[in-house]
Amino acid sequence: MAITREPTPTTGDHLRRALDGVLHDTKEKVRVDLNRDEFLPHYTPDLEQARAKTLEQMRLLTASGNAANGFRVEHGGTGDVGAAVTSIELLAMSDLSLMVKAGVQWGLFGGAIENLGTERHHEQYVKPTIDLDLLGCFAMTETGHGSDVQALETTATYDPATDEFVIHSPTPSARKDYIGGAAQHATMAAVFAQLIVPTEGQPSDAAESQGVHCLVVPIRDEQGNDLPGVTTSDCGYKGGLPGVDNGRIVFDHVRVPRNNLLNRYGDVDENGVYHSPIENTSRRFFTMLGTLVRGRITVGGSAAAAARVALTIATKYGLQRRQFDAPESDDEILIMDYLVHQRRLLPLIARAYGLGFAQNELVSTLARLQNDPSENPQEQRELENRAAGLKVANTDFATRAIQECREACGGAGYLMENRLVALKADTDVFTTFEGDNKVLTQLVAKELLTGYADEVQGMSPVEWMRFAVDVVGDVVKKRTAAQQIIQTLLDTRKDNEEEGSLFDRGTQLDMFCDREEYLLSTAARRLQGAFKREDDPFDAFNFVQDHVLAAARAHIDRVVLEAFVAGIDDCKDDTAKELLGELCDLYALSVIDGDKAWFIEHRRLSVERAKAVTRGINERCRTLRPHAETIVTGLGVPDYLLGAAMLDGPGTDG
Amino acid sequence: MAITREPTPTTGDHLRRALDGVLHDTKEKVRVDLNRDEFLPHYTPDLEQARAKTLEQMRLLTASGNAANGFRVEHGGTGDVGAAVTSIELLAMSDLSLMVKAGVQWGLFGGAIENLGTERHHEQYVKPTIDLDLLGCFAMTETGHGSDVQALETTATYDPATDEFVIHSPTPSARKDYIGGAAQHATMAAVFAQLIVPTEGQPSDAAESQGVHCLVVPIRDEQGNDLPGVTTSDCGYKGGLPGVDNGRIVFDHVRVPRNNLLNRYGDVDENGVYHSPIENTSRRFFTMLGTLVRGRITVGGSAAAAARVALTIATKYGLQRRQFDAPESDDEILIMDYLVHQRRLLPLIARAYGLGFAQNELVSTLARLQNDPSENPQEQRELENRAAGLKVANTDFATRAIQECREACGGAGYLMENRLVALKADTDVFTTFEGDNKVLTQLVAKELLTGYADEVQGMSPVEWMRFAVDVVGDVVKKRTAAQQIIQTLLDTRKDNEEEGSLFDRGTQLDMFCDREEYLLSTAARRLQGAFKREDDPFDAFNFVQDHVLAAARAHIDRVVLEAFVAGIDDCKDDTAKELLGELCDLYALSVIDGDKAWFIEHRRLSVERAKAVTRGINERCRTLRPHAETIVTGLGVPDYLLGAAMLDGPGTDG
Repeated sequence: MAITREPTPTTGDHLRRALDGVLHDTKEKVRVDLNRDEFLPHYTPDLEQARAKTLEQMRLLTASGNAANGFRVEHGGTGDVGAAVTSIELLAMSDLSLMVKAGVQWGLFGGAIENLGTERHHEQYVKPTIDLDLLGCFAMTETGHGSDVQALETTATYDPATDEFVIHSPTPSARKDYIGGAAQHATMAAVFAQLIVPTEGQPSDAAESQGVHCLVVPIRDEQGNDLPGVTTSDCGYKGGLPGVDNGRIVFDHVRVPRNNLLNRYGDVDENGVYHSPIENTSRRFFTMLGTLVRGRITVGGSAAAAARVALTIATKYGLQRRQFDAPESDDEILIMDYLVHQRRLLPLIARAYGLGFAQNELVSTLARLQNDPSENPQEQRELENRAAGLKVANTDFATRAIQECREACGGAGYLMENRLVALKADTDVFTTFEGDNKVLTQLVAKELLTGYADEVQGMSPVEWMRFAVDVVGDVVKKRTAAQQIIQTLLDTRKDNEEEGSLFDRGTQLDMFCDREEYLLSTAARRLQGAFKREDDPFDAFNFVQDHVLAAARAHIDRVVLEAFVAGIDDCKDDTAKELLGELCDLYALSVIDGDKAWFIEHRRLSVERAKAVTRGINERCRTLRPHAETIVTGLGVPDYLLGAAMLDGPGTDG
Repeated sequence: MAITREPTPTTGDHLRRALDGVLHDTKEKVRVDLNRDEFLPHYTPDLEQARAKTLEQMRLLTASGNAANGFRVEHGGTGDVGAAVTSIELLAMSDLSLMVKAGVQWGLFGGAIENLGTERHHEQYVKPTIDLDLLGCFAMTETGHGSDVQALETTATYDPATDEFVIHSPTPSARKDYIGGAAQHATMAAVFAQLIVPTEGQPSDAAESQGVHCLVVPIRDEQGNDLPGVTTSDCGYKGGLPGVDNGRIVFDHVRVPRNNLLNRYGDVDENGVYHSPIENTSRRFFTMLGTLVRGRITVGGSAAAAARVALTIATKYGLQRRQFDAPESDDEILIMDYLVHQRRLLPLIARAYGLGFAQNELVSTLARLQNDPSENPQEQRELENRAAGLKVANTDFATRAIQECREACGGAGYLMENRLVALKADTDVFTTFEGDNKVLTQLVAKELLTGYADEVQGMSPVEWMRFAVDVVGDVVKKRTAAQQIIQTLLDTRKDNEEEGSLFDRGTQLDMFCDREEYLLSTAARRLQGAFKREDDPFDAFNFVQDHVLAAARAHIDRVVLEAFVAGIDDCKDDTAKELLGELCDLYALSVIDGDKAWFIEHRRLSVERAKAVTRGINERCRTLRPHAETIVTGLGVPDYLLGAAMLDGPGTDG
């Protein structure tokens, strides 16, 4: 009787299906790929061992075929961008060092070749990059410049005498820093440098930079020795990510052939003359950066995946750990039964769902745009803005959620064998790399306030402000998700003064939209006022900086809520849909609670209704408590990737 | 001309003097003691090496004489309790592993001997404990019970046949866990166990426990082998604290002489009969615990010291790091000049001052009470409550502040060589050990609500609630700090509706007091109401749990503000005093901002004045910005204990 049947899907399965979204199949494939001993979560503090293990895992990944997804068919890949991003981001469930290393190799280095290079580069580099016959690194950040990458100091000066570029680090702060792969494994670097092309008879130090461009520069021989003129060094121990060999690179007049310039957006011809399809230096640079948006999307997604692992571990622990006597019983109380414990974890789980739905939309948009031959600059800019916003939301969330999970597991949470501390340590830098969160938040607001005007990119904060004063006007709010359903919810909302209306989805949507619009339009007005009033333009900028950041955060909150609504609408199972509705309420109420003073001050919430917000949160915690196991099952982390000894150790009764 | 003069003290020196308080001399001595190569901050990830290094540092510390401070003169110490606590807590500036190891040896193990033992124990153990000829550990927590230590499962059963106690771990969850020193170095454990003394003819399993008592139990021989019946194991890697050898102990019917019971509060006589000066089992246990309050005070103080190191590093970095062009200048902008950066760091520095002043008061009270032969149970309970509250405030603060410092230093902050990640990792467990912060916060509220009633200690949450319903009434608020000046400020306050009144110290004090009183009295009323309404007493408890926690937090905020006011009053230098005033404003306004919705909802803040809170914070950030270097100098962390390579590395211009 060897008939095996598909088991009937549980509500947890339906939730996972809903949260996986259109990338369900890719995600299932990654889960299966990671179900082997080599990918079980591990803690390997020794740098040498950890780096070797990560490299070995990378080689196993090439066999899975996922590495080819990030490259176009004509370059030797499969061209499935959504799968490329998703398969890298979900490596976070196994090991964040692996995720970062894979992201550097196939996402950043490979992405630079793919998107900034042309045919000659694709032919030469794509296949060995996929197969790991070529290990690359992405040398953008310098010791002196991380956020302001337009001001990088490394130079690539064209020498017509030899038809070469000379790569040079002119100052100590021009040193490439924190570069994953630079300490040990990478033999080639995608180096970002000021491109200097002297015209005939002009000395090179008189020539202006054409802006930052990317060149491929060999840095090590096959034995791992630095090539002449290259000096690499090791960043050593970090807060986490022991399997990533971050390092530094100093160039001393290193020569590479002219053809090593990744020349899709700017080239030097055989006569030593610079050409570019984009005239404006700054716009050119940001167009190049824009093609690399995938990295930012992957980092946000990975942080979210790590947070989902932590929330699953902490919730399961809360469902087995007991403390303090229960009344009229010999048992002790499950810690998940304490309201305070529910309030620690359940709103974070709710937010994890919202962010997951928003990330799905983002990845779908990315895939659509990158497969669309008709480039649409406006849509591309919106994608970049969304990517920046969700990178901030996901990584801030991960830092906060994993910390809360650690604390919610007490002393057990502090042991490496229970994984939470490693998740925290490894993801801690995610708020910094691929764009510092504070800087990115500002970028989101800048773009919204000036309607994606071309000129804005690359402006310093003060320059931008001068510009913004003239152009800010009606801020355009675009909805990407489920336009129809959201409009219906808005139209049928019941936002009267009664507290029940807080739980009306249309009212919630309206409150989120209204806060965003108000903050954006008042930020615009305050910008203009401050600029007229303050003598020093930097003071004027400073005067409104916190308001501008608040506007961006309100925008991101709204995007996540709309994605949540769309995600619920797509769910096929009624029970799962109902739980998602409760979770969405919990997300919306938590956001309102977090900015409650604003809503009251701006007369969007009466004092009476404000008090109902906390009650609403507590009620939803109580409603969701019996489904705690189910809703973490929906987060889609397989048991074999939890890696927490306490979930089956002694002293538990669960 | 070899005349050397004391340099004129700077404002930073005056601030440091003020923040050091009455323990200035002790703190200066610790700073001098730590100024040698062996105590420079280091990162030693390998467990074996880190543990060996910590032990070596411990031996150097014994030479400094500070270890004797925690013991009475008649036992071989110096009896300077304030110096004992302070000299351990400031080790955090050098290395938190060292601080924890010293705290375990001299604070917890030594404290158990000192406070729970009697003459025979003092004679035998105090001197070798001071000199490190005896390495001890403090075996309280078990795998199954950390917060609810009254429910520990380890048993110590008296066997009249041999006049011994039999120490036993009856279940897997009875295993002693996370015990510092148990993995490797400790040869003796202060073991907390249910004391079972069968009366004649009664089988031991029929005897009731006299409650948890402490016994000294040898666990290892001099070669480091487990003694018969003892099985130790290693907790392995943790989130941080690599120099502390945390481990587990399982006892299998281990026999120790009757005299090994630390018998100050409960003893078994030579006839096998149990006696205690305290009849009530629970009260007895909490009296014992109360004598160990020093550990909790030290942990809070150490967390604060670590946060001061992090704030100093991040602020100095913000004063040398530049990013983005300044208008009309070739320079880039110092990141500390951005308002958003000021708002990240300056309010935390302000809070660090407030917490420092509060900690000084707490340590002074501890020293006074422990040197006072006339035991005053009420004052002791208040001390314990204050210790619990400030442990929560200091450790929550450290976790949040160090995280913010890491992020404020970007990628550089993530490198181990810049120390912030190690400070974060090492202190992360401080919110958990010596009492989980959520549990302690509840304890603070419980004690306040029931006026330190004896019966309350040791009650489960629900038991306490049943009790509280009958006794809560007028909540007594006691002021320890600067009664006179605070009353004057309150009496002369100008809390009208104008926004300027928010910056009146009396108004701020009044707002803090009022919020605490309101939350406590309404918590009491809600407790009673919930208990009458809900069928299940646990549901009733859950219903008000968040309100109870909010009341405790409001209490702690008020205690810190009052200590801040007293600290300013004690400062002798006018310029320093003025800066402290600005910092105090910033602290008070930040607390109000953090709970602004509450103040508005409860009509303590009009919508108009509420908007002025943010403006007030921003203004104080601007005022304090030019003094950023000075105010971190006042935090009292010597340059040689910063241990951050970036503060003198390349790429800086500071």
